[in-house]
This record gives sequence, structure tokens and C-alpha cells, in this order.
Amino acid sequence: MRRIMIRVAYDGTAYHGWQLQDGQVSIESVLNEAISHLLKEEISVIGASRTDSGVHSLGTAAVFDTNSRIPAEKLKYAINQGLPEDIRVIESREVRPDFHPRKCVSHKTYEYVICNAPVYQPVGRLYRYFYHYPLDEKKMAEAASYVVGEHDFTSFCSIGTQAKDFVRTMEFCEVTRTGDDIRIRIRGNGFLYNMVRILAGTLIEIGGGKREPSEMKQILEARDRNAAGPTAPAQGLTMLGIDFEEDPGIAEKP
Amino acid sequence: MRRIMIRVAYDGTAYHGWQLQDGQVSIESVLNEAISHLLKEEISVIGASRTDSGVHSLGTAAVFDTNSRIPAEKLKYAINQGLPEDIRVIESREVRPDFHPRKCVSHKTYEYVICNAPVYQPVGRLYRYFYHYPLDEKKMAEAASYVVGEHDFTSFCSIGTQAKDFVRTMEFCEVTRTGDDIRIRIRGNGFLYNMVRILAGTLIEIGGGKREPSEMKQILEARDRNAAGPTAPAQGLTMLGIDFEEDPGIAEKP
Repeated sequence: MRRIMIRVAYDGTAYHGWQLQDGQVSIESVLNEAISHLLKEEISVIGASRTDSGVHSLGTAAVFDTNSRIPAEKLKYAINQGLPEDIRVIESREVRPDFHPRKCVSHKTYEYVICNAPVYQPVGRLYRYFYHYPLDEKKMAEAASYVVGEHDFTSFCSIGTQAKDFVRTMEFCEVTRTGDDIRIRIRGNGFLYNMVRILAGTLIEIGGGKREPSEMKQILEARDRNAAGPTAPAQGLTMLGIDFEEDPGIAEKP
Repeated sequence: MRRIMIRVAYDGTAYHGWQLQDGQVSIESVLNEAISHLLKEEISVIGASRTDSGVHSLGTAAVFDTNSRIPAEKLKYAINQGLPEDIRVIESREVRPDFHPRKCVSHKTYEYVICNAPVYQPVGRLYRYFYHYPLDEKKMAEAASYVVGEHDFTSFCSIGTQAKDFVRTMEFCEVTRTGDDIRIRIRGNGFLYNMVRILAGTLIEIGGGKREPSEMKQILEARDRNAAGPTAPAQGLTMLGIDFEEDPGIAEKP
């Protein structure tokens, strides 16, 4: 039995998120079906992160166990043959049998894109949140700087989460504008449920002048979901990638 | 009777191009239906350009005639109520009754986007052509410079066109790369059938080293479709805009 890690990129538009749900088509269900069919085994992938319906990814990580003798690096080509064009395995490799992508130190990077223009733009609408009221990206960038470092992010976590520890460390949180597109890029060692979308919703309020950038400090301190802004829509969010602090590759035998 | 000009942005993925075709859903058919329904008149829009199936636009121009008394500037909001989210009227205004968007001097700008990466990327696939073999964008830019100015573009026109005059003037044709995305931007006073897509297909051959940049000169001189490269796929192409040399607005009454 070998453990294989795959990197998966997907357009989340047509799916009910990553996670397996009864009667719904999810990224996980499509992967399980395609890989099981290919390897003639019952395969259950374990994902590194669970994105919501409509959220995209340029490369999340997942593992599965198999008795197949297909070389690990070749598996991606074989799996992709059985996947729809909006899901692609971009890497496959063998990892340690005990490697679990959610039970090790990792860093994830997300991007939230707001199309800030007076007129709704159909092209690219599946990958951006359209917001027509003018936003000041400088104020948003200033506000974003408050979340960098170690904080309790309870205010930025949707109610009903299973999380017990709300402290996370953000390496950076940057806001930049290119033309009509405002991009929020954030990297950290863990994200709570809906955290980036609530952060985006809060930054939109600040960029629109409803709140001051410095209020971010109080919002964090409040440790109360009601202190933050609304959850911004799913389609603006893309997971850019995940990297593991320790290499998950097979440890050399002593 | 007033003539109204609209600017229309659309994601062409779901449509059989701009032009009305029997039994097919086109941008034109959807607009005619929505505007006719709204104004309770038989409306036929006249478009400034006809894009193929799968090609996008950030704002093409079209006109129609109506007896409606709705202020021209408000029409866009009313029309958008009846349109699917992948088509949007971004501007509406009254123009001269004799203004015809294809019978006047105009400049159009197009962009062709190639995602040049070793691994296929599902996110954004509807707006880019994925090409995995490495491309040299500097060679492509050099080749592109040959089409600037007045030339006979017969080599870059699909066979079966109704065009009689193949001479067009290109104001610029630039190739730039940002990360994996190579963008070809071209602006000119008219484009032949499939011209930008054939140009993109030819530039890909040059960027991939199959041909030298300087061959563009001979390809133009050949005036033969077979001298150029293949027609690149539709989804990479977006019309960025059109502007008219003479303002189509209503001439002030003497």
C-alpha cells in the first residue's frame, strides 16, 4: 500500500465545494469516483482544505492510499483522463504512509478578487465579486496590515464551526489594484471557516468608507463574528496554493 | 422613431457567436428578444462586429430603432433586467438616425490570451487558450511588430469570407507576458474573418521556434491563407472595445 499526494486545481463554479455531501457533486466526490474507476479500488481522498461551493483553487493538496503499481508521477496523467475539464491533477507523488495533509504544519495562500467598476462586467464574473461602489484600495491595504502576525480570528469565523482554537498567524495580507480589479492576497498557517471571505467583506466596508482602517484592531479584539463585516461571495475566492513545512516525501530508510 | 446605440459586454462561452442563426442562441438573438419584450416592438439590433462562438467582448456597439419614450440613458437598466448574467448592456444613448456601426470609420481593439504553462489550469480556462509548450514572448513581440501599419491581410483571413478588400491598418500589435499569461493586443481600423485568431496561431508557431519572427513579412506578402499558421481557438479572444472616428451623437439642430 502506498500513499499518494496529488495537487488539484479546479474551477469551483459547478461544484458543491470540496467536501463529500450526500447527493451533491463535490470536487472530492468527482476525484474519488475517477481515481476508484482508474485503479479498480475503493479510493477516498483526504484533502488539505475544504473550500465552499463556488470557490476555486490553483492547487490544493490531497492524499489517498492505493495498491496500484502505476509510477506515482504518471498517475496524474491517468487520473486526468477521467476528470472533467474544470478539475485537473497538476502533480502526483508518493509520500510517507503517515503523512496527513491536515495534521501537519502548512501555509496556505488565498486570493480574493473584487471587480470594482461602475458597470457589471460579464467576462470573468465566475472568478470575481462585482462591487460597483468606489473602493479606496489604500485604506483597504492599511486595514489589511492589522491582521498580519498572530491573532485570535474569532471575529472572522462563521458561527457553527468545529474549531476550538481561533489563533492563527498571517504572514502577509496585501491589497493591490490593477485597473478595476482589487486583489486581496493573504498567506497564513491556517484559516477558519469563511475567514478570507469575512475579511474581504470587512475590507470592502472599509474601502467604501463605512469604517476606518484602524477599526480592524477593535474588530480583532472583539472576538465576535458580529463585529466584522459580511461574508463576501464565494466566487471571488481562489486558493492559490499550500506548502508543507516538512517535506512529505518518503523518508529515506536508515 | 429614435436610434439607440448600446454597448454590450458578454461572455461568449454559452453562445453561438454574435450573429443570428436559425435555431441557435446567439448574443444577437438574446438581445433582440429581451429588447423586443421590454419595448413591445419588433427590435432588430445591428452590431458593429460579429464575433464567433466562444469569443468574448468587453463592449461591442450595436444600434436599434424604437418608438419608445424611455430616456435613452435609462434603457440599459431596463434591458439588463431581461438579460442573462453573461450579457450586459453597459451603455445606452441616442444617436443620429443614419448612424450605422458597420458603415463608418471605427477602431477596434482585441486581446488574445494564451496561458503558457506546463500544466493545464482549469481556472480561467474559458478566457484563455492553454498551450503547454514554452513560448518566447520576445520573438512573438518582434513578429507582431511586422503587422503594424497598412497591409494586405489576405493571409490572415479565413477562406469563404465575403470581404473584397483585404487591406487594413493596424495601429499597434503588442505581445506581453505576465506570469503564465501571454497577451496579444491589437488595434486597427478593421479586422477580417478570424484575423486575430490566425495571427495568434501564427505568433504561437513563432514563439515556439517553428518559424522566425522575420517570416511574418513573407507571410503578409504571400496573400495566401496557407502561408500563415492555424486559427487559434475562440475562447482566448476578447474584443476590448470599439470607438468611432466621428461621434455618433445626435447633431445639434441648426
